[in-house]
Amino acid sequence: MKQTEVTVVRLYLNEGEAQLENLLKRLHDWEKVKGVSVFRGIAGFGDSGEIHTSKFIDLGMELPLVVEFFDTPQKVEAIMEHISTTMKPGHMLSWSAQINENE
Amino acid sequence: MKQTEVTVVRLYLNEGEAQLENLLKRLHDWEKVKGVSVFRGIAGFGDSGEIHTSKFIDLGMELPLVVEFFDTPQKVEAIMEHISTTMKPGHMLSWSAQINENE
Amino acid sequence: MKQTEVTVVRLYLNEGEAQLENLLKRLHDWEKVKGVSVFRGIAGFGDSGEIHTSKFIDLGMELPLVVEFFDTPQKVEAIMEHISTTMKPGHMLSWSAQINENE
Repeated sequence: MKQTEVTVVRLYLNEGEAQLENLLKRLHDWEKVKGVSVFRGIAGFGDSGEIHTSKFIDLGMELPLVVEFFDTPQKVEAIMEHISTTMKPGHMLSWSAQINENE
Repeated sequence: MKQTEVTVVRLYLNEGEAQLENLLKRLHDWEKVKGVSVFRGIAGFGDSGEIHTSKFIDLGMELPLVVEFFDTPQKVEAIMEHISTTMKPGHMLSWSAQINENE
Repeated sequence: MKQTEVTVVRLYLNEGEAQLENLLKRLHDWEKVKGVSVFRGIAGFGDSGEIHTSKFIDLGMELPLVVEFFDTPQKVEAIMEHISTTMKPGHMLSWSAQINENE
C-alpha cells in the first residue's frame, strides 16, 4: 500500500448556513478541492460562551458546523491563505496525515 | 497567515447524556476551554462489542458520542490530567495541530 | 497520566450503507478493532463533483459517511493493508496520536 502526505483541515463555522454555502462553493468551484465533508454537532459552545444543545435547534441557535477536507500540503497552504480572511482566529485547524494512493 | 500549535482532544463517551452534560459544564465553567463541539455517530461499537446503529436509537442503545476541543499544549495537558480519572482507558485521544491566529 | 501511541484512521465511504455494513462487520469480527465510530455528514462533495446537502436526503443522494477508529500502529498498518483493496485511492486517511492508558 502506497501512502502520501496530506494536510487535513477542519474549519469551525459560526455564522451558520450562509457561511457554509459560500465556503462550499469556493472550495468546490475555485479551489478545486477533491472532497469535502460537512458535519453538524449536537451540542457545543464557542465564542459566545453559551452552551448550545440540540434541544435549542428550534429556537434558531447555532450548533457546531465543521467543514473537513484534505489535499497536498502545498495546495492546502494556498487554500488556507485564501480563506483565512473569512475565518475567525482559532477556527481553522490543520495537521499532517497520510492518505492511500493508487497501488 | 500566522499559525500556532495546539493539542486537539477527542473524548469518546460511553455513558450517554449524563456524562456529556457534566463534561461540558466542567470544560466550560472550570477549564475555560474556548470552544467545544459534540458529535453523535450514527453507528459504532465499543467496549460492549455489540454493533450499534441508529436503527436502535428508540431502544435506548447508546450511539457514539464524541467531545472535541483544542487549546494550547500546556492547557490541554492540565485538562487531560484533571479529567483522566473520569475517562476510561483508550477513550481520550490527542494529537498536535496548527490553528490560525490573528494576523 | 500514561499515554501510548496509536494510529487514527478515517475512512470516507462513497457507496453508502451496504459498504458500511460490510466494513463494520470486518473491523469487528475479523480485525478485532476495539472501538469504531461512524459519522454521517450533512453536506459534502466527492468524486462526482456534485455538492450534496441534507436537503437531498429524501432523493436518495449519498451524504458523507466516515468510519473512524484507532489502534496500535502495527495493528492499524495490517488492517489498512487488508482493507486497502476495498477503498478508493484518497479515501483512507491516517495519522499518529496519543491515547490515555491505565494508570
